[in-house]
This record gives sequence, structure tokens and C-alpha cells, in this order.
Amino acid sequence: MVAEGVISEEEAVERIEPMQLDSLLHPTLDPKAERTIVAKGLPASPGAAVGEIVFNPDEAEKLAAQGKTVILVRIETSPEDIHGMHAAAGILTTRGGMTSHAAVVARGMGRPCVSGAGTVHIDYDAQIMSSGGETLKKGDIITVDGTTGQVLKGEVAMIQPELTGDFATLMVWADKLRRMGVRANADTPRDAVQAREFGAEGIGLCRTEHMFFDHERILAVREMILAESEEGRKAALDKILPMQRDDFTDLFEIMKGLPVTIRLLDPPLHEFLPQHDEEIAEVAEALGTSAKKLNYRLGELKEFNPMLGHRGCRLAITYPEITEMQARAIFEAAADAGQKTGDPVDVEVMIPLIAAREEYEFLSEKIIAVADAVQGEKGVKLNYSIGTMIELPRACLRAHEIAISAEFFSFGTNDLTQTAYGLSRDDSASFLGDYIARGIFEVDPFVSIDTLGVGELMEIGIKRGRETRPDIKLGICGEHAGDPASIDFCEKLGLDYVSCSPFRLPVARLAAAQAALRGKKAKS
Amino acid sequence: MVAEGVISEEEAVERIEPMQLDSLLHPTLDPKAERTIVAKGLPASPGAAVGEIVFNPDEAEKLAAQGKTVILVRIETSPEDIHGMHAAAGILTTRGGMTSHAAVVARGMGRPCVSGAGTVHIDYDAQIMSSGGETLKKGDIITVDGTTGQVLKGEVAMIQPELTGDFATLMVWADKLRRMGVRANADTPRDAVQAREFGAEGIGLCRTEHMFFDHERILAVREMILAESEEGRKAALDKILPMQRDDFTDLFEIMKGLPVTIRLLDPPLHEFLPQHDEEIAEVAEALGTSAKKLNYRLGELKEFNPMLGHRGCRLAITYPEITEMQARAIFEAAADAGQKTGDPVDVEVMIPLIAAREEYEFLSEKIIAVADAVQGEKGVKLNYSIGTMIELPRACLRAHEIAISAEFFSFGTNDLTQTAYGLSRDDSASFLGDYIARGIFEVDPFVSIDTLGVGELMEIGIKRGRETRPDIKLGICGEHAGDPASIDFCEKLGLDYVSCSPFRLPVARLAAAQAALRGKKAKS
Repeated sequence: MVAEGVISEEEAVERIEPMQLDSLLHPTLDPKAERTIVAKGLPASPGAAVGEIVFNPDEAEKLAAQGKTVILVRIETSPEDIHGMHAAAGILTTRGGMTSHAAVVARGMGRPCVSGAGTVHIDYDAQIMSSGGETLKKGDIITVDGTTGQVLKGEVAMIQPELTGDFATLMVWADKLRRMGVRANADTPRDAVQAREFGAEGIGLCRTEHMFFDHERILAVREMILAESEEGRKAALDKILPMQRDDFTDLFEIMKGLPVTIRLLDPPLHEFLPQHDEEIAEVAEALGTSAKKLNYRLGELKEFNPMLGHRGCRLAITYPEITEMQARAIFEAAADAGQKTGDPVDVEVMIPLIAAREEYEFLSEKIIAVADAVQGEKGVKLNYSIGTMIELPRACLRAHEIAISAEFFSFGTNDLTQTAYGLSRDDSASFLGDYIARGIFEVDPFVSIDTLGVGELMEIGIKRGRETRPDIKLGICGEHAGDPASIDFCEKLGLDYVSCSPFRLPVARLAAAQAALRGKKAKS
Repeated sequence: MVAEGVISEEEAVERIEPMQLDSLLHPTLDPKAERTIVAKGLPASPGAAVGEIVFNPDEAEKLAAQGKTVILVRIETSPEDIHGMHAAAGILTTRGGMTSHAAVVARGMGRPCVSGAGTVHIDYDAQIMSSGGETLKKGDIITVDGTTGQVLKGEVAMIQPELTGDFATLMVWADKLRRMGVRANADTPRDAVQAREFGAEGIGLCRTEHMFFDHERILAVREMILAESEEGRKAALDKILPMQRDDFTDLFEIMKGLPVTIRLLDPPLHEFLPQHDEEIAEVAEALGTSAKKLNYRLGELKEFNPMLGHRGCRLAITYPEITEMQARAIFEAAADAGQKTGDPVDVEVMIPLIAAREEYEFLSEKIIAVADAVQGEKGVKLNYSIGTMIELPRACLRAHEIAISAEFFSFGTNDLTQTAYGLSRDDSASFLGDYIARGIFEVDPFVSIDTLGVGELMEIGIKRGRETRPDIKLGICGEHAGDPASIDFCEKLGLDYVSCSPFRLPVARLAAAQAALRGKKAKS
């Protein structure tokens, strides 16, 4: 219609519902490939995915963290399975329709999903699923086709989506119209490649902890955690340094001079230790220590409320040597990748969970010292900045002080929602249903930003941050950044960019363009 | 000096350091009583206490919740023991001086403490302590005398402090000078009697959950939690109702028409269930159910971050029948006690953990309906109001909406500190030391209100609450309310009252007077 002059590019961009793009963005099964159909359910969320069967969301998350691709198979899902659904490449349920929890959430996440495959019988205890005489066990490979509702044995060949033709044209129009930048959250080179394909203008969040879970390096990470002295920790960190540096070098080379925001280690240390007796014994042996000692350290690290515990910048303040190792890995990689590709690396070092200026400055000084050292050693001038996540109410209130030293703010609206409401996302499942049913919440505040509460904290943070530093760079990373309603709010706030998961980039690009158009209309 | 005309009453009030009063406010050992000295340590925090030996802070808390009086015996204490120190009547450590953690914290709390009793050997595994040939085990009664540093076997007769003479005179002067009201946090009739002795002008916080732990009623509470239907829950709640009503009747009679703020059930339900296999089996038998079923329910109720979980008003929204039972117990007791004593009961029903107006109104409507019913049944007019804790950042921001229906706000600055900072008090021990040592925090924000962050949230809440309801009653309950620096800040905020633990009342009365004087001077 644009070609025919019936509607303008602007009108075309306005007419498309961003969430509809989702179906265009997923791999589809090769129509020529052979298919062994195991079961059939509802085509609950489009796209196809292949991976190993896992029946437990915790395990899905763990395996995904180790770089495995998994299909989460459940009788049905509930909100406490969300982390496993996020971690899975695809989802299969045996119960529930097109509006079941699994179906709705999978569509929201852009995960292929087959729901209500009633012939499949799952035995959680035995860790097997059977259907039509076929029995598959945990770890077996299956393919789910959320476009047709088929469940297939083994790996079926797939066709990657091509973002060409009308889709590409629409994206070009959207990109011309939007004001905000669009970045991706990408932890691995694979994510980064995908991000670039989907039009990312940079990486807005690289979570470094995911790199720690890798099979080869987790041992050194555990050695570090169990070390009894700073020297012991440093020795273990020295082993991690080259691996972490290689990760960053790859990322920087792929991003070719586009900005890359790297967040320093965030989760509490107990997340890196084994939890079950068997695994504890194994790990103790591998580390040359005793299960008793490992259990003791586990006991020491145990927390009542890990979300509010010894994590983020607090960890870095207790163990500055972790930050120093990470900063060195980042800056050495930036120097190397810049020299190799000829594109100077634009790296932004991001400190998580800041509540007070004093925390920020304690750490930023250490990071600057490492940058100075690396610049001296390598004889290069690095292009870097240091900034912080704004994810705690107190950080919003004290933003004018934090901005004295911080060069950018990236809003972490997931944690900001958790703290503003005093509400753990992982635990909210048990009552969020009642809240929605009784009209107490109109929408789940973890899906769309609560503009009245969390949003006002963001406004305060922006206003005060800019009072000190008028040109402070402002972004948002996390799941809200892929939600059209939240993107519209970010446009109103005047953020510089949104950073979402790679698959959500087209949605974000379109939503950002629509938000900009709405903003222009509201002004005129 | 006042009598001699050397200084004025005001000057006298200004000259005394509030924390010094602490030593005057504790029981002392009867000098005529016989003493069997087991050990001697440092007189780390004045006053004497008698109770049964407990070596574990969790257990101290649990036994105290069951109404037992305990002495916490530790090699040394650390911040993660705080809940146990709060729960204990007295504290004994075998290591550490007058500025050790145990000593400093005990003085802050007003708990008698003997520290560094070096001859005492503690065996945590065997749950025994020995000193000078004497061995005492968990559950044995000891007396600690924090004024002399003596540790004594058995119960030694004590003399209760008499708040007479110069002390009483000083309090009279302070009461004339202060603007804010002073209330006590009191959960039991015993607390209430103490509160009145120490000059409480009301109860600012009665935590109803403590009533649920009582040996006789915990069974009915567990029945309620395990019930599979609303009917089952109601049947169990019907058993709890008369007991809860009796608690309130006693409180109201003691308080004789002074205001009593009763907070509805706050903690998550799993806190009421047994945690260890043995106890689970026992409880299952008592309830006529299986350990398997009990374990299943425990699994359902398990939370990643209980502090941010299914508690407070969220619990009440899921199970309104609990709120209705509590409201009925409160109103029936108010009607009965009012008729019996002739003093009309002034009761304030307080809803915890409100983040949104919709939560508040859903519950306040149910409470009003119960009040109407009880007034009809009893043929009396009740003098009650309904209000809320303000303990979440979002509640401060949306205070103008919440105040449409809420008649009072009581700031819960402990939870507000936890959420504003994203910092769990129970987990902060592992790094708070580093924070203080490195100058990142000047003071522990759980000891004195962080005026810059938490304080601004309070200011916002007050300003907005008053915009809607200019005469809204404003108070603070919790530990900050007994801290002189925080009391000074509350005076600046213009709160109507502070509510602290009974033993802190004289400190609070004096600090409130000093704060009022400072305020007057600042204005002139």
C-alpha cells in the first residue's frame, strides 16, 4: 500500500501490532525434512525448536547456563516455572489450551510452544514421557513445532528466518522513525551474532556470570569461592582471567565498534556451588578438598533472601579482586580486539546493584586504575566509560550523587519492580493470579512497567541524574525493554536506548518507532 | 540543679544522653539473694536476666515466640545472630570485650549481657557449656548479671527497677517538653503492663502472629494452613477465634482506653509449619495427616525470598477468611472490654505490606463489614479506625491514593530500609562490616534511619498522604523508633508518635523531648 501511495511509511509502521512480528522471527521446519511425529498438540506459540528433553524448570535453567539447548516438557506450567521457560528453546505441555499459562507466556517470550498434547504421558519421577508406544527419556532430543503443534522425535532440519522482503522494508521504515536506540542483551558470541542480524545497535547488557558457569571454568570459580585468603582467590582468578578475556574479545570483534555494556558479576556466590550431596562430593574431590569443608562454606553463604543479599556491587566491595580481574579481562580484550579489527572498541563497564554513591566510587576508582594499567602495558588509548544499573529505589533517589561519577545509567526495572513493591518475582506466582482475578493488578508488573510507582522512581532517577550530568546516557535493560507498552513509557521518559533479548529486537524497533510517532502527535 | 535554680528543666532534659537511661531500666539482682557463681566476664550491658540456656539464635527466637525466656549463650556473636539476641532476655559470650559485637548490640537493645567469660567452654554439638567443673546443658536455667559480669546458676531473685525519684522527675519534664506521642510495641499482656509502667500512651504495634505460635493454638493454625478448602480453613479459624479474642480483651483491658494498633497477620504461612523431619512426623500425627502431605504443603509454601513473598496483605487477599477472623476477634474483644471496664476501646486495625490502594481497599471493606456485623450483634458503637503500615517504596509514592481510605499510616522503617536498599537485614551481616570499615556506610541503616534515602521516601509518603487527608495520623513502629537519632528525624518529619519496645520508652520519651527542643531552637 505504501508502494501504491495509499498510505505513508508512517501509517504502515503504525498499523502493525508489534507482537505480531514475533511469528516471523523464529526458525521453521524444513518442509523437505523427514518427520517422525510422536504426538500432536495445539500450535500455542509459533516457530520450531530442537533440544534435549528436560522435565524440571530448575534443571532447564542449569543446563541452559551450561550452554545446552533444552525443551521443557511439563504436564502444565505455572508462574514458578518461568525461569525454566526462559531458559528453554521450546516448551511442550500435555494439558491446557491456547490460553493456558504455557501458551500465553511462551508467546510473550517468543518461545515456540506446543500445548495440550494429550496423548503424551509424563512420569516426573522416572523422568520419561511416552506417547503412542514411544518412550523418550530425559536428555533425548526432540523437536517441537509451535506453528503446527507437532512433536517430533530427534532433530528435524530447520530453516532460519530471513529478515528480508516486506519485513526488512518495514524495519527500515521503523528505524527511520524511531528516536531511541535499540540494543540487545547478549551474553555469548552466539547471542551477539543473532543480535546483529536482528538489527541491534549495540549490546546493552552482557551478563558476565553466564560465562562463569561454563564447564571448564566453573571449577576455577569454585576454587575462588572456597579460597581462604585473598592470595588463594587471586590465584583462582588468574585462571579465569584468560578465559573471560577471550569471551570479551569474541564479543567485541562481532560487535565491530558498536557499544557493548558489560555488567560485572551480579549473583550471590552460592549460585556457583553445588547443592546436592552427590554433586558436593564430586566437586569436593575435583577441588581436592573435603565435602565437609564445602558444606561449611555452603552454610556460610546460605541466605534468607538471596535477592536482597550479598550480590552485585556488594560482592565486589568485599572481594575487589573479582572486579579487578573482570576489568582487566574487559580492557585487555578491548585493546586486543580494537587492534585486530581496526574498529576501536566502545566498552561500557556497568556496576550492578548500586544504592549509594560511596559504593559506586569505591569500585569505579578500582576500575579506572585497571584501565590505566592496561593502557600503559598495551600502549593504547581505550575508549571506555563506567556507569551503573539503576535498580534500587535508593539509587533513583540519590541519582544526583551517583551521577557525579557515573557516566551512564541503565535501568534494571525487574529488580526495581521487586524492590518498589517488595515483591519477589519468583515467589509472586502463588498470589499474582488472585491479584489479577480480583482486579488488584491490571497487568503483571513484571510484564509491563508499573508506570505509577516504578515509573515515578525512574523519572526521579532521570531528573536527578541529569541535574548533575545533563548528557548522562540513559537506557533500560531487561525484559520490560521488549514489551511495547513499556517501550512507549521509555520514549516518554526520554531514554536513549532500550536493550532487549535478540529475538525481541524487531518488536522493540517497531514499538520504538510507534512510540516516537505517538510522542510527536502528542506534542503537535 | 533544677531545684537549686542553677539550670532550667529544659536544660536538664537536654543534658542527659538518652542511651544512659538504659542502665536504670533493667532489673537488678537482689543483693540479699544467694548466688552460685559459675563464671565471670565483663559487665558488657547492664541489668540482670534469668532464663533457660540456648546456644542457637534461631532456637532462641523460636522458644521466645513460644513464650519462653531464654539466655543466648555464644562463643561470640555476629550480625546474623541479631534475631536471637532480640529474642533473648540476656546474652552471654565467652570471647570479646566491651566493644565486641555482642556488647555493642546488647547495649543498643537494652539487653543485659556478660561478654568474654573466658573460663566458659561451649560445645555447640553437645549443646553444653562448662566452667570451673560445672556443666550446664541446653534448657538449664542461668542468671546473667550484666552490671557486675557474673554468670550464676539457677534463678537468682531480682528487684524490678523503680522508675521513681529523680528518674521520674526527669520523665515528667521530658513529657512536658515533647510534642510527639510515645507508644510501645507490645504483643502480650505482659508487654502491655510493662509498657504502661514505662509511660506508654498506647500500643503502636501489636503483632498478632506471636499469638499464633502459642502451644495450644499452633495446632489449629497448622490445620488452617493445611486445609484444602475455604470451609476447612474456616473451621480451623473458628477454633482460633476465641483464643485470639481473649488475647485482645486482655490487652484492651490493660490499656484502658488508650489507643491500641493491631497489625493483621504478617509473616508467610511456612513460618508456622515444622521444618525438620522429626517434628514433621510429630505434627502430621497430631493433625491426623501424613508426613508426605505435610511435606508437600511445605514444598508448595517454600519461597526463594520470603521477605518479598506471600505475606502481609497478600496473604489476606488470598485468604480473606483469616482477616475476617482477626477482625471479628478484635471487634468482639473491643466491645467486651469496653463494656467491662467502662473505658471505650480505641482500636486501630493496621494492614501490613500495602503497595497499592486496591489492596488496601479490598481488605478495608472486608474489615468494615465485620465491624458493622459485630456492632449489630452486640448493639454497641465501636470506636475504631483502619490504616496501614507504610513499609514499601511504592506505598510512599502512592500515599495520596492509599490515604483516600486509610485513616492512619505507621511507617515500618525496617522493611522500608530493606526495600529501598534492596538489602535483607538478616543477610547483611556478611558484608555490613566491610561497608562500615570502608566508610561506605557511616552507620548501619537498620540502627539509625537513612535520612537521605529511606527518609526521603517517608517525606514523600507524608506529604502525599496529607494532601488527601490533612489530619491523617502518622506514626512509626519498629526498632528505629527507639533510636535517638531516628527519633530526632521523626520530629523533623512531624510524626504524631513513635512506638518502640517497652524498655526503650524512657529513652524515646527523653529523645522526643530533646528533638522537640532542637526543633524549637532551629525555628527561633
